[in-house]
Amino acid sequence: MDLKDKIRDIQDFPKEGIVFRDITTLIQDPEAFQYVVDNFKNEFSGSEIDVIVGVESRGFIFGAALAYAMKIPFAIVRKPGKLPSTIVYEEYELEYGTDRLEVHDDAVKEGDKVLIVDDLLATGGTSRATANLIEKIGGEIAAFAFVIELSFLKGREKLKDYKLYSLVDYKSD
Amino acid sequence: MDLKDKIRDIQDFPKEGIVFRDITTLIQDPEAFQYVVDNFKNEFSGSEIDVIVGVESRGFIFGAALAYAMKIPFAIVRKPGKLPSTIVYEEYELEYGTDRLEVHDDAVKEGDKVLIVDDLLATGGTSRATANLIEKIGGEIAAFAFVIELSFLKGREKLKDYKLYSLVDYKSD
Repeated sequence: MDLKDKIRDIQDFPKEGIVFRDITTLIQDPEAFQYVVDNFKNEFSGSEIDVIVGVESRGFIFGAALAYAMKIPFAIVRKPGKLPSTIVYEEYELEYGTDRLEVHDDAVKEGDKVLIVDDLLATGGTSRATANLIEKIGGEIAAFAFVIELSFLKGREKLKDYKLYSLVDYKSD
Repeated sequence: MDLKDKIRDIQDFPKEGIVFRDITTLIQDPEAFQYVVDNFKNEFSGSEIDVIVGVESRGFIFGAALAYAMKIPFAIVRKPGKLPSTIVYEEYELEYGTDRLEVHDDAVKEGDKVLIVDDLLATGGTSRATANLIEKIGGEIAAFAFVIELSFLKGREKLKDYKLYSLVDYKSD
């Protein structure tokens, strides 16, 4: 299956000059969604994975379905103020200013092997912050899984310490 | 399985006097997560459901896993400004002020039977707005599925035109 046929390109979103890769058309196609989740499952079923982490909020879509398919605990990394119990946070730089991600301190156990799932790898800022956050609470990053990689933004360089798997690559904007 | 054992009660979140029902402990337990998704699947597998709609963002977790399990298209209802293509919106009242939900105009086709999934039914404001939104773009509401119902908040009354299924009920705060 050519997943690029299932992903919709939106010109100038969220701002002029950006082509947004829209996965809503992919998840509305059950064969394509099944293909993505089953592909991830096949890729990682031979690895030791104790927890799948989904990053708010499109990462919840692919992460939750994969956790269900693999019968593995599913934990979530969220934007500030959403998680109700004891949290640990990580700040990271944006183009202008900083942003922050949070996780419950019991989302993983010490030494757990963690697979981080998100829909898209762009510059890698969010992903790197997620890895730092999981390591802060004692987890070890087994790998990252992305549906889409925008390799021209070189996010892989920020994640070079980790195994990284992506299904679709856009080499230019 | 008693799902209440899997749900964590957090006192005074998001504000004093509220007991927050935290599903992160449930989804971190693969048997409990499997139980929820498979229970929904069994409940609705005899019904005509063309699309499952998940409401941002905890609704994505249960909705996506269910859509994967049932091999049914998955569409998403989001907070303002997140969806990149042509949207339709619905405003609804909060305790103070209004909020707004958005959906892509092609999230469902005319006459599609839609199952709306969310983690929790409280006062029903978000759910009612979601139903209105889906109807605006031509869908018919087959049912609502919630993991948790806070029946003391009487959300069911706002949704009395619809079939409503929930797994766990809290009859008081």
